[in-house]
Amino acid sequence: MTDKEKIDWIRLLRSEGIGQITFHKLIAKYQNPSNTIEFLKSFPKYKIADVSVAEKELESAEKLGCTILFSCDENYPFLLKQIPDAPAVLYVLGNPDALTAKNFAIVGSRNASINSRTLTEVLSRDMVDAGYTIVSGMALGIDTSAHTGALNSDNLNGKKTVAVLSGGVDNIYPSSNKKLYHTIIENGAIVSEMPIGTQPQANLFPRRNRIISGLSYGTAIIEASLKSGSLITARFAMEQNREVFAVPNFPLDPRAGGTNMLIKNGATLIENATDIISVIGGLSKDSFAKNDLFNRIYEDTISYFPKLNTEFNEQDLQDKILSLLNSTPVSIDCLIRELFEFSQTQILDALLSLELDDKIAYPSVGKIIIK
Amino acid sequence: MTDKEKIDWIRLLRSEGIGQITFHKLIAKYQNPSNTIEFLKSFPKYKIADVSVAEKELESAEKLGCTILFSCDENYPFLLKQIPDAPAVLYVLGNPDALTAKNFAIVGSRNASINSRTLTEVLSRDMVDAGYTIVSGMALGIDTSAHTGALNSDNLNGKKTVAVLSGGVDNIYPSSNKKLYHTIIENGAIVSEMPIGTQPQANLFPRRNRIISGLSYGTAIIEASLKSGSLITARFAMEQNREVFAVPNFPLDPRAGGTNMLIKNGATLIENATDIISVIGGLSKDSFAKNDLFNRIYEDTISYFPKLNTEFNEQDLQDKILSLLNSTPVSIDCLIRELFEFSQTQILDALLSLELDDKIAYPSVGKIIIK
Repeated sequence: MTDKEKIDWIRLLRSEGIGQITFHKLIAKYQNPSNTIEFLKSFPKYKIADVSVAEKELESAEKLGCTILFSCDENYPFLLKQIPDAPAVLYVLGNPDALTAKNFAIVGSRNASINSRTLTEVLSRDMVDAGYTIVSGMALGIDTSAHTGALNSDNLNGKKTVAVLSGGVDNIYPSSNKKLYHTIIENGAIVSEMPIGTQPQANLFPRRNRIISGLSYGTAIIEASLKSGSLITARFAMEQNREVFAVPNFPLDPRAGGTNMLIKNGATLIENATDIISVIGGLSKDSFAKNDLFNRIYEDTISYFPKLNTEFNEQDLQDKILSLLNSTPVSIDCLIRELFEFSQTQILDALLSLELDDKIAYPSVGKIIIK
Repeated sequence: MTDKEKIDWIRLLRSEGIGQITFHKLIAKYQNPSNTIEFLKSFPKYKIADVSVAEKELESAEKLGCTILFSCDENYPFLLKQIPDAPAVLYVLGNPDALTAKNFAIVGSRNASINSRTLTEVLSRDMVDAGYTIVSGMALGIDTSAHTGALNSDNLNGKKTVAVLSGGVDNIYPSSNKKLYHTIIENGAIVSEMPIGTQPQANLFPRRNRIISGLSYGTAIIEASLKSGSLITARFAMEQNREVFAVPNFPLDPRAGGTNMLIKNGATLIENATDIISVIGGLSKDSFAKNDLFNRIYEDTISYFPKLNTEFNEQDLQDKILSLLNSTPVSIDCLIRELFEFSQTQILDALLSLELDDKIAYPSVGKIIIK
């Protein structure tokens, strides 16, 4: 990318009303950020970010010594690229190779028991000894033990652990983990999709969790009540077609609800690193290529629907789509099957137009409702 | 059955060298115990028990007020009848209807934690409240809590719980459970396959466990280390094609190994009675009919092998079987497939002859080795 394209990439990304998925759809359709910005100018409601905002964002990252990874880059983490809402940009402090290692996520409750923290440290160290890189969120409790255990390994590969922050990579949160933060930079990486200077806020945590699971072959939840935020990471991992692992606990322990529920729903019960490696040891990054809806439908140029409507009028298709939807979410797959006389590209283009016109919304990945 | 047939049934059962499975095969081939005894007289190594021994066994059971159930009886427990080594006779104190109820087994370690015993009592009571009968082994620890919890239910059906003893039904073991024993007789049943007066011995416990699982739609293991005897019951349940359930526990607890291992190997993780009922609630006894090898091959009179060897000579077949076997166990199913030109009945008859001649042995159910 040229410098102008990088600036436009960030301008488009920080525009009001443009989420990550829409960003990727627009780039896929209009080929590059500059063309997309030109196109969006005809929609007054999308406020394209100023050049100065984008310049400032990139400059401050460079000044801090960050590696900046755009989702179109060759060296952008392959596994993360497979998720439909992959961050369009990543800021990395430390060793960017840690993001493309054999990553495994370990997360759990902040209010963790001593036993669970002990188990986490052992599990994490054993995984790094076996050549894996541990991804977590640097929160108190299990996350902290996951990073600490990884750092305790004797492995000298410089990619022991990755901390994904919800604020900017310059923002040490919680502040009590200051020493841990610096040790992670020396032995792995700190990463965030947010601009330098962003304060961590409660509403940013769930989004952050999709990056933790998205970077990793699998995610282990060590301890979690039924209300724990780490269950969000487990849900992301499942939606991303990644392996989910959970440590069991006795049912009368209030912190057992979440992990036991995960095992009931199909997560693999684990007691040690061997249990994890026996499942993910045989996986390669190719195991996850093109599994997501986004890649599947945009890259699949051969339509398997035999009879296409040749007298195509996008307005008619948009009307038809609106007549099929209501406020109950419907999957894109269902809609495509229903509209079998149109090509997938025609349907996806019509959906993009409807989204830009604010007539439909995506309450969750791959689900559509009328607005 | 006539009185003479009953006496012969017990004589055959208590003969030296005749196990439960061979007993059933002989009865299936020679139609009744009296014919079988006549046939066996030509083999001096099988010492048929004296008439007086059988008379004494039946008399002492009647004197104690036992219900005596023979495996050919209509009212013999249907689920138990489906296992290949179903006890040929059962002695019952209390309500025999408890054996044919909606049975569910709950077992676990003798050296159980307070938490596990509490959970067992709640689980057991809730199951009886929901109309189930709890089967266990009256051992200390989890078994005792299983019976106690069942008895705590307000259900007045008189079949709350069944205790399967390894010694005779007159033998209260452990003696500290004397009060529990009498309460079980009033609200359910005590059952054993052993003659009245038999002392419980360590070597009888594993055999007893097959009856606990065999009587039940499923078996839950509440707490068990990797060396716990209750894992034997779980193995029986699996071999008997019954559902296996286990309560999870934190890996650092030494008593967690067995139940966590079961869940890893496919047992259903449970936290409460609802978790169990959601799996077995839809099952009826018909779900288990004719699942076992024994019934499948003896009752299936229509051979599906098109070309049978019509010039049949059993000696030739026996020689052929011996040439196919060695000291590594081979399944009967494999052998039958290999000998496709013979009917199943011909093969099974030849196997029975070889077994009686001491030329082959069955190291486990359905597996054959050469002796």
